[in-house]
Amino acid sequence: MSNSAILLIHCPDQPGLVALVTEFVHKNRGNILNLDQHVDRDLNHFFMRIEWDLAGFIIPREKINDYFATLIGNAHGMKWQLKFTEHKPRMVLFVSKASHCLYDILQRYGTEEFNCDIPAIVSNHEHLRYIAERFDIPFHYLPITAVNKAEQEARTIALLEELEADFIVLARYMQILSDDFCQHFQHRIINIHHSFLPAFKGARPYHSAFERGVKLIGATSHYVTADLDEGPIIAQDVERVSHRDGTEDLQRIGKDVEKRVLSRAIYLQLQHLILPFGNRTIIFH
Amino acid sequence: MSNSAILLIHCPDQPGLVALVTEFVHKNRGNILNLDQHVDRDLNHFFMRIEWDLAGFIIPREKINDYFATLIGNAHGMKWQLKFTEHKPRMVLFVSKASHCLYDILQRYGTEEFNCDIPAIVSNHEHLRYIAERFDIPFHYLPITAVNKAEQEARTIALLEELEADFIVLARYMQILSDDFCQHFQHRIINIHHSFLPAFKGARPYHSAFERGVKLIGATSHYVTADLDEGPIIAQDVERVSHRDGTEDLQRIGKDVEKRVLSRAIYLQLQHLILPFGNRTIIFH
Amino acid sequence: MSNSAILLIHCPDQPGLVALVTEFVHKNRGNILNLDQHVDRDLNHFFMRIEWDLAGFIIPREKINDYFATLIGNAHGMKWQLKFTEHKPRMVLFVSKASHCLYDILQRYGTEEFNCDIPAIVSNHEHLRYIAERFDIPFHYLPITAVNKAEQEARTIALLEELEADFIVLARYMQILSDDFCQHFQHRIINIHHSFLPAFKGARPYHSAFERGVKLIGATSHYVTADLDEGPIIAQDVERVSHRDGTEDLQRIGKDVEKRVLSRAIYLQLQHLILPFGNRTIIFH
Amino acid sequence: MSNSAILLIHCPDQPGLVALVTEFVHKNRGNILNLDQHVDRDLNHFFMRIEWDLAGFIIPREKINDYFATLIGNAHGMKWQLKFTEHKPRMVLFVSKASHCLYDILQRYGTEEFNCDIPAIVSNHEHLRYIAERFDIPFHYLPITAVNKAEQEARTIALLEELEADFIVLARYMQILSDDFCQHFQHRIINIHHSFLPAFKGARPYHSAFERGVKLIGATSHYVTADLDEGPIIAQDVERVSHRDGTEDLQRIGKDVEKRVLSRAIYLQLQHLILPFGNRTIIFH
Repeated sequence: MSNSAILLIHCPDQPGLVALVTEFVHKNRGNILNLDQHVDRDLNHFFMRIEWDLAGFIIPREKINDYFATLIGNAHGMKWQLKFTEHKPRMVLFVSKASHCLYDILQRYGTEEFNCDIPAIVSNHEHLRYIAERFDIPFHYLPITAVNKAEQEARTIALLEELEADFIVLARYMQILSDDFCQHFQHRIINIHHSFLPAFKGARPYHSAFERGVKLIGATSHYVTADLDEGPIIAQDVERVSHRDGTEDLQRIGKDVEKRVLSRAIYLQLQHLILPFGNRTIIFH
Repeated sequence: MSNSAILLIHCPDQPGLVALVTEFVHKNRGNILNLDQHVDRDLNHFFMRIEWDLAGFIIPREKINDYFATLIGNAHGMKWQLKFTEHKPRMVLFVSKASHCLYDILQRYGTEEFNCDIPAIVSNHEHLRYIAERFDIPFHYLPITAVNKAEQEARTIALLEELEADFIVLARYMQILSDDFCQHFQHRIINIHHSFLPAFKGARPYHSAFERGVKLIGATSHYVTADLDEGPIIAQDVERVSHRDGTEDLQRIGKDVEKRVLSRAIYLQLQHLILPFGNRTIIFH
Repeated sequence: MSNSAILLIHCPDQPGLVALVTEFVHKNRGNILNLDQHVDRDLNHFFMRIEWDLAGFIIPREKINDYFATLIGNAHGMKWQLKFTEHKPRMVLFVSKASHCLYDILQRYGTEEFNCDIPAIVSNHEHLRYIAERFDIPFHYLPITAVNKAEQEARTIALLEELEADFIVLARYMQILSDDFCQHFQHRIINIHHSFLPAFKGARPYHSAFERGVKLIGATSHYVTADLDEGPIIAQDVERVSHRDGTEDLQRIGKDVEKRVLSRAIYLQLQHLILPFGNRTIIFH
Repeated sequence: MSNSAILLIHCPDQPGLVALVTEFVHKNRGNILNLDQHVDRDLNHFFMRIEWDLAGFIIPREKINDYFATLIGNAHGMKWQLKFTEHKPRMVLFVSKASHCLYDILQRYGTEEFNCDIPAIVSNHEHLRYIAERFDIPFHYLPITAVNKAEQEARTIALLEELEADFIVLARYMQILSDDFCQHFQHRIINIHHSFLPAFKGARPYHSAFERGVKLIGATSHYVTADLDEGPIIAQDVERVSHRDGTEDLQRIGKDVEKRVLSRAIYLQLQHLILPFGNRTIIFH
């Protein structure tokens, strides 16, 4: 099994950053496995992802963050995340009634395309409990009403903390999360929206697409923020449609796009390839 | 050379319409070359395109419209267009400063991919006159100011009528046409907008796309109506982009999509394959 | 529930065919719901699909085939298939060890995207029995060895006849069927091959793709014939890959393409939209 | 104008390579603008592209190659190319009769999407001389017969050397180059083949595609080697087709794919983003 460390770094651009970080790894006997960097010339901002083998690395795993902060990060105004491939991410799925994304995710999980744990499926409906049971995953029914929303969200947060969830996937979960909830899990909630954002934000995008007479329909996976359908986009794709496709056809065709775009985002998340910055994402693939 | 007639028909759906029209053609000794029909179940509306060989057809060409109206069309509440493949469509190009769509169109015209005449290129700038000259096409410089707009549009209409233009292509023409002008040439002006509409309407769509951090950029060809970027969509396509692509890259990549989407729309128009209906288009391909 | 008839017809082209068939339907009080025709100009061959509502049609359902043969089909050298939407097609799945296509099909079946019955899953391995059980579909384990192949195929044919299977889907079934078996079920076996045929026929196409350094990988669904990977193609799609993708990545990315291309073919088959002709297919969509 | 150096490096993988090269640049006061690396785990081979600003770099431009060789490259078994962005590449186009790729390239050249010089267009036919004249580019008519081939190739090589051509683009040039010619310009000849290789190698791929009944057609740009259509692939793309598309339609649709795939390869070449290795290419984009 792989045993490597990954640093996702960003900071204002300045000369020598790549050399600085590669030297930190190399001098301490880490073998660099992957390195990718990007400078946004408009924003004059630097982004980097570096992965190195921990075998032989002389800084103990639990001290890497401190050493990096002291020796490099703080002095250069960096922000960073440190990840270890030994840790298997814990992903919790939120669903409502539609099963297509859920099945697609569970099939990939079952065949180890997704290297993660799924400690729970959370839903505001009972409809998909049978699927959770087929896959032996605990199912938590947490119905939401106008009255109990805050209470149920608190309960959900408690559950997620108990489960040590790393991130949440809204696999066609049809409830709008509160601003507080979104803040609490910043860059840790991935949603799938059934349109090529920013077109057709909000409810019933396939109906809007039909009425507008578009020749392409799409889907967008993004991090959830307090602004509905406005968070940083992770992946998008489209499929061609024609006048022959009524609203039901658009929904049928769209499900395929939703499945692959959401699973693409999950894959990137599990590989620690995404660096969100403002309202954009850097995808190091 | 082909010598056939094409009827593009639509009307409220009712039983027997296909049989009625095919019988009209067949009984009068026209051989049906192509037939495509579509019923919009939501709107309960019928659409049909039929093409038949005129060799042997017993109704004289100039009387077909009258006969069809009297025998079938009027009695069934139909609207229709009648086209003859012997007529080579006359397409006028409107351009401003960007040359990529213009070159692409002229290359297809030069190699007879586009079977049409181009009696004129109209522009509000002098920049692309040299290209018109290279291809021996008359170039009309009609600059637009806040003051002279109505006057220049009147002059343009007179020119188009004199040239017997069948339709107009706005090949990145950067002037907004007046409502009157749009009305005058309803379903006869094709525009290319440099985004996948309805996302990023209006000016500077690539800048907006960059700021929103989308992972796809697109282009849309549509008929021009008085509502800016709201007319019936003819064709759309997209291309993948990434965080590495700055605004200039989006423009560069986007040009390719614009070229092929606009030329696709022109091809469909020249083959009489488009039937606009409300804010949508039926594409019989 | 819909109650309509579908005729898929082909014959050498001759004037009047469309009028003849539409008249047959219309005169006998069938309302035409869909009509699509195509003439292959190179082969001078005519293809047509017509669907009409049986409510009010004066020829009894069980006599339609005879009447059509006598009145039209035989006299014009036509070949045709007659389908009724009331009949729910019976599809049998053949699998080996890979689960991705199977799950994808069963999810679509479970959500009624696929309107069919699945009376059985057949496999030469026990690996996927648990999935069949999760979906309550009978699983038939029919292992194949060099010695028992003919015997097992005979058993399989008996099973399929007992189950009244309409068609078979090889959802990554890793056994080559005998020529006799292929003949027996001509145009009734749909396979998914994990390359964009005709590139990379035969075994291990992702390894070959990696070695050739292609920038696209694909999948192809086709009817199975005695010539391996040479049958009529129903659907194809591709996905971009790069030098970063090793053989395992190609397999992972390829699974997505396989899933959607195979399910696309099944959808077309269930809607009676495919007309195979020689080594090609007409897809009336 | 940019003034930077680019190193494209590959060698057997070993620890510390990234640090070594970044240190070489950084210690000598070069600011790293871009860095991308890749390790092929199957082949255990290392690839890297690094670009740095020459302003302030203390090693004189003309000595960089020697210093890099002595200090790093030779000791680690590296092979490398050194490029300077100040040098405007000199690209020579070879054409025959088809104009679509030529026009597409010249339009991009004219609008400075391609930052290069085009000192000549070479052809074995006179057909496209008028296009060269429209763009004021010298046109060299070098007809090839069975008898004069070796002689004409020698003349062509002399011309290319006189013109100081950096690389050659075969923009639908319909002559097979001799092995010697290919060797002479190894990794310096880019071809466009009108199929998604390895499908439909050799002549008349659109006819073969039609006969095989494929649902996608494609194009492939690749470096030319002595093995016809077998050289390292740079870019590929496809477009959907249907049974409605005869051979002429495939050619028409295919031209669009050819244009964009060839221009994509040229763009990558001009940006020094391609590193060929064996029969594959690393594309650092």
